[in-house]
Order: sequence, then C-alpha cells, then structure tokens
Amino acid sequence: MKVIVYGADGYIGWPMALHLASLGHEVLAVDNLARRSWDLEGGTEPLNEIASFDERVSVWNSLGQGKPITHRIYDICDYEAVASDIASFSPEAVVHFGEQRSAPFSMISREHAVRTQVNNIVGNLNILFAIHDINPEIHLVKLGSMGEYGTPNIDIEEGYLTITHNGRTDTLPYPKLPHSFYHLSKVADSYNIHFTSRVWGLRATDLNQGVVYGVSTPQTDIDPRLATRFDYDSVWGTALNRFTIQGSLGYPITVYGKGGQTRGYLDIRDTMACITLALENPPQAGEFRVFNQFTEQFSLNDLADTVAAVATKRGLDPRILHLENPRVEKEEHYYNAKHSALIDLGLAPHYLAETLIDSLFDFVTRYRDRIDSELLETPTVTWRDGANDVWRKHADLAIARENFQREGKGVIDRSL
Amino acid sequence: MKVIVYGADGYIGWPMALHLASLGHEVLAVDNLARRSWDLEGGTEPLNEIASFDERVSVWNSLGQGKPITHRIYDICDYEAVASDIASFSPEAVVHFGEQRSAPFSMISREHAVRTQVNNIVGNLNILFAIHDINPEIHLVKLGSMGEYGTPNIDIEEGYLTITHNGRTDTLPYPKLPHSFYHLSKVADSYNIHFTSRVWGLRATDLNQGVVYGVSTPQTDIDPRLATRFDYDSVWGTALNRFTIQGSLGYPITVYGKGGQTRGYLDIRDTMACITLALENPPQAGEFRVFNQFTEQFSLNDLADTVAAVATKRGLDPRILHLENPRVEKEEHYYNAKHSALIDLGLAPHYLAETLIDSLFDFVTRYRDRIDSELLETPTVTWRDGANDVWRKHADLAIARENFQREGKGVIDRSL
Repeated sequence: MKVIVYGADGYIGWPMALHLASLGHEVLAVDNLARRSWDLEGGTEPLNEIASFDERVSVWNSLGQGKPITHRIYDICDYEAVASDIASFSPEAVVHFGEQRSAPFSMISREHAVRTQVNNIVGNLNILFAIHDINPEIHLVKLGSMGEYGTPNIDIEEGYLTITHNGRTDTLPYPKLPHSFYHLSKVADSYNIHFTSRVWGLRATDLNQGVVYGVSTPQTDIDPRLATRFDYDSVWGTALNRFTIQGSLGYPITVYGKGGQTRGYLDIRDTMACITLALENPPQAGEFRVFNQFTEQFSLNDLADTVAAVATKRGLDPRILHLENPRVEKEEHYYNAKHSALIDLGLAPHYLAETLIDSLFDFVTRYRDRIDSELLETPTVTWRDGANDVWRKHADLAIARENFQREGKGVIDRSL
Repeated sequence: MKVIVYGADGYIGWPMALHLASLGHEVLAVDNLARRSWDLEGGTEPLNEIASFDERVSVWNSLGQGKPITHRIYDICDYEAVASDIASFSPEAVVHFGEQRSAPFSMISREHAVRTQVNNIVGNLNILFAIHDINPEIHLVKLGSMGEYGTPNIDIEEGYLTITHNGRTDTLPYPKLPHSFYHLSKVADSYNIHFTSRVWGLRATDLNQGVVYGVSTPQTDIDPRLATRFDYDSVWGTALNRFTIQGSLGYPITVYGKGGQTRGYLDIRDTMACITLALENPPQAGEFRVFNQFTEQFSLNDLADTVAAVATKRGLDPRILHLENPRVEKEEHYYNAKHSALIDLGLAPHYLAETLIDSLFDFVTRYRDRIDSELLETPTVTWRDGANDVWRKHADLAIARENFQREGKGVIDRSL
C-alpha cells in the first residue's frame, strides 16, 4: 500500500513510518520539523539523543529491513505542497499526525492558542481539500484525542451517541468537553472531517487516542539512530514520563491535584497496531468512523503508585507529593470510555505492567546525565493565566518556581 | 451601558449599533469593512444604496436621536487593537457580529473555507483573550447560527441536551451537524467560548440565530443614509430576499431542491430586541448561555407560497420553479427547534405576514433599476465542487449559468 505519513518526524509519526515500511508498505514521510523548532523556542529537549530527520531516514534505508522510506520537508499549511504530493505519489491512504499536539503549549499564551488552532485546522483542511480535489477514494486516518471528550458523567462512546429525546431517536456526534485549546483544535478537525464525509463522500477514520507511553518498538530498537524521542518537561512530556524520571532519581513523584484524573492509556506498540488495523480495514466512501484508541484507564494516582512500587523494588525510597494543579479539570470524576472497535478488528493489547515501567527506569538511567531537574519540579504552564510568557525562556523556569512557592502554593505529602 | 459592537457596519450590526444608541447606551462601533471588500472582490452589491461607515455614523450623530456613536475601523484579528479598545473604552458588554457570515462564500473554494474559519476563529479567540486579560466581568454576546445544529431527527434544544445513557445522566453541549464550512466556524467558536467559561469563568451568551429578514427598523427608517443593506445575490442574499425580487418582477420564484428545507426565521426588529434582552439580563460569571434566536419555522416552500400569494394580490402571475439544489442537505426532514428562552425574557415577536412581504415588494420596486437579474437565476456556488472559482468574476456568471443548463440540470414546474 502507498501511504503518506504527515508528522513523520514526531514521537509517534517516526516509529509509524518505520512500522509501515517494515510491513512492506511504500511510505512517503512528510514533516516540517516544527516539533524540533518548538524545542529550540522553549529551551526544551528530549531525554535521549535523536538523529536528524535526514539521518534517521538514511539509516533506515541503509539497513534493508523493509521498504525504503522517501521523506520530504514542508508545512502542510502550504496547500500546493500537499496537493502536489498527493497527485504525484498517489497514495491509497494518508496518516495525519502533523499537528501541534501539546495541551500545555496551547495554553501558554494567546499567541500559542491561536497558532495551535490555525496550524491544526488549516493543515487538516488542506489535506481534506487535496483528497477531494485529486482522489476522493483516499482513506484519511486522522489522529484525534480522547481529551476531546473531557470527563462527562456518562459513558463515553466511540464518536457517536444514539440519543432518544422526546420520543424520537437519532445517532449524533458524541458531545465534547475538550480540555484545552489544543483539544479544541481536534474537535474542530473532527467536525470538518465529518462534514466532508457527508458532503463530499470522503472516507475517514478519526482515532481518538489516549495517552501514549513507551519509547520502544521493534524498529526503533534496531539502531540507536532510529530511536524516537522521550519528552519529560511540563510542556511536551506526559505525567508518566515525569514520574518515571522522578522515581528513578529518588525525587518526589509530583502529582498535580488530587490525582483522581483518569484517562485512557496505550503502549506505543499498540498505536502502531491500531493504525495498521485502521489502514487494513478502510471505511466505506462517505463513512466517518471514530475509534477510541487506548487499552486501559488509569488515574494519576494509579500511575504514581505503580512507579513508586517499581522504585521501591529497585531499593529507592519514593515519596508522592501532590502539588497544586495548574490545569482546570475535575480531579475526582466518573470515567468509563468504550474502546471495543479496535479490539473487534483484532488488536491484542500490551498492558502497562511493572516490567514496562522497569524498562523505562533502565532507559532513563542510561540518559541520567542529560536530565535537567528544573524541568521536573514545577508546573510552568497554568490553565488560568492565559499568558504564561515566563515559559518562553528556559532560564526563567527558576523564577516561575520561586513565584509558585512564594504564592504559598505548597505541597502535600500523600502516604504510600 | 457601554457596549462595543464588532461588525457594526454589517446588515445587522449597523441597525444594532443604532438601536443601542437610541436606547441611550454608549456604543463603540468597530468594523474592518470586510463585507464591503467582499462585494468588490465578487462583483456583488446590495440592492439599495448604503452610505459609507463614516457617513452613516456622522449622520446619526448629527440627528440627536440618541447617544452619539464612536466608530473605529480595524480587524479584530489584530489582538493589539482589540485589547487596546477593551482597556480604554472599558465596556460592560461586547456584541460580536464581526465574522464572515455567508455559507456559500465559505464553500466557494479551499481558500474561502480557510479564510472563513481562520478569520472567525481567530477574531473570536482575540475577544475572549482580551476579556480574560483585561476584565473578565465583561459579558460577551456572540452571534451563532441555527445552522450549527443542522437537521437532526430529534428536537433541537437551546445549546445543551440532558442525556441519560446506560443509567447515568449529564447535561452536555447539544450535538452539532453544521451545514457548511461557515457554520463549522461557528461551532468551533461555541466550543472555544464554552471552554473559557469553564476554565476562566467568563460570562457569555451565544445566540444561535435563524435567518433574518426585513430591512427596516425605527432607526434605519429615520434617514435614507441610515439604511442597512439588502442582499439578494446567491452568495450574500437569503432565499426569501431572492424570492421577493423574483416575485416583484414577475420572474419565476426559484426554489433549490424539493423545498422541504425548514429553518428558523426572525424579523430584524426581533434581532434588535433579542440582543437587547440578552444585554439587559447577563449570565452569571462562568455561565455559557445559549439561546435559539428565531421566532417561527418555515420551509422554503412555505416562503415561496407566501411570496407568490403577495405577487398574485398585486396582479402578477407568479410561477414557482424547482432547480437542482447546489447544496448538500436534506430536502425533507423533521425539524422542531426550541426557542423559549428569549420569549421567557420578554420577547414579543413580529411574525412574518403578507404585510411584511408586501412592504418588501415596495422596497424592491423602489430599487428596480438596480436589480441585476443575472444574480437571481442560477445558483453559482455548489457544495459538491469545492472549487467554485467561476464565482470570482461577476462576468463569469453567464458562463456558470450556461454550464449549469448544458449539464441538463433542468427546472421542474410546481403547481401553486
């Protein structure tokens, strides 16, 4: 199959391109290197060293482990570039990761909120129009987010909800309560894609993905230069990554708020499998299909406890601290999200176990010298402020931390 | 009360500024004159002659009929301009009409879809951030659209729906099935506003407005230079305006499709009353209130029949033709939208009667010499094509019409 992967230099996009190439698919890997430029802009960097886009592609192509990958560098907000490649490469499917994907980044300032929404919405519209204008048979596989749903007090279904109201029934898009300006951009994308399926007959799969963990796939493990990034700072990293580093260093594990915040999670290897299943089982023309792409639900406290258990076994003495939550979100809530569609297609999940956390401890320990402990301690982007410009300069993190402490936003111990 | 009106040079924004000034409110009227520039771009113009923004404001201010209006010309996509005025004028409320408001315009081409969504979403985000940064007490009154809901098979409620699912209950945003890229921009706006009410505690009223008809308010009638625009072309005009011109000229009344398309409608004088009621009864801090702003439901066939009845009384011999529908929409469907919230606040509606249509016939007859009959006959923007570039040049309308007829898209008589 010929597949274009947008955002193919990113945390998931890169292993995805490798995975598809290893299966013998012909992959055109597209990225504008925005994720790397945002690191430069904010003074962040991944824990591990990663090869440049050019280098990782040429390493893959030199190894002979699957089909060679073609790569191109451009911004999908440039319609001519998108349309030109869709016309000349003539893919059967496109996998679209090419968006700004950090909720905290979108909450830094007005400029970041606007940049996130314009970038994501325009890039996605360009792909939709290119498919419509050039070949409406192309299957769009789009990465959405479980964070689009928020935390409603009813079960979360997969994209749609059948509603009976005043004696009449319809199946309508599931109502959304998105968590951030980033998640709002994904909601806008979903509505735009759904519209083009109704009006133009496009076929699309929206994968409302949970939080992805892990850094290892069979392909990234072949050579260190094929590694994907591991982020742990407060803008790009996940809570589990932060916990892992804190646990492995013997630092307090910092939970923001009460820790009852529950979300769906999945192993990066299952992301590979889910997207492959979606590609191998395309929807009908005119069908906008939505899958909830995660395998297990955890609260922050569940994750902190698991990390602490691993640390204890490794002879460390972990402590869990609850910091004031920089986000505005429910900290104790009902959460039951359905995720059977991908299982029905054949997904065999990897579950989060202490062995996986243990391997992450090994990974983190390998890069111990590169850890910047300032990035771990203080949540630097708050949902309330709307102008977290202090984030802009890495050097200002110390000031942010000081202000945070001076304002009496203390820490509370929680017994293990 | 001090109120900023964004989009104050538009069809509704202008009479709204006058209405508020006549009630003694202090109005800052803001517009970037985009609507006039889109007329220049597309070769369209209103049926009537309208004064420039500068002139209409100075005429109003010279008449002494209410408070003088201050006006400023800038684009609300310029955050510094928005924030500067909110800080210096210090309004208690802002009324936001300042968006691209034509569904067909948004469907002309990719560029028009992108322009519509970026313009509307960024302008609205800028207002939200300025309110949050400067004075979160300000009440945002935002114009939404009934077209955000589409035509679900269940009753349409006002913004929210209480859903019981698997034995649990929550009240969530009403699911949307928007009709066009324009309506999709309004959905994105609604989600963004709702988010800022939850996270920042902003207070906002989203007015999901039906199709507005009429051209006369007590203030616009004072002086011809205070008139608001009457559009009848296929991009900016409504079906009722087109029917009225066709009926008054003795031309066939052209219904696109079967004519069962049912929507909510209201008189422009009721728009004035609704927005005033919203301003006088602000929501609580943190409340995102949604009202469905219309007074009656009609199908296209209902409207065509009413116009034809008036034409018959005036001694004309009207005929109703059904043309192939350029839009993708249900032409026979259930439609029952609630609209009690504004009635509960005291709205006393003007209902659409033959007398109103009769007065529109008089209005149209007055400007008979300005009618461009090419603008009436052929739907020029189709929902399916995605690249209606023929629209760009007024001169190309004849070609579009010819193509439309050559493709065998004939007309079907419907007996009265």
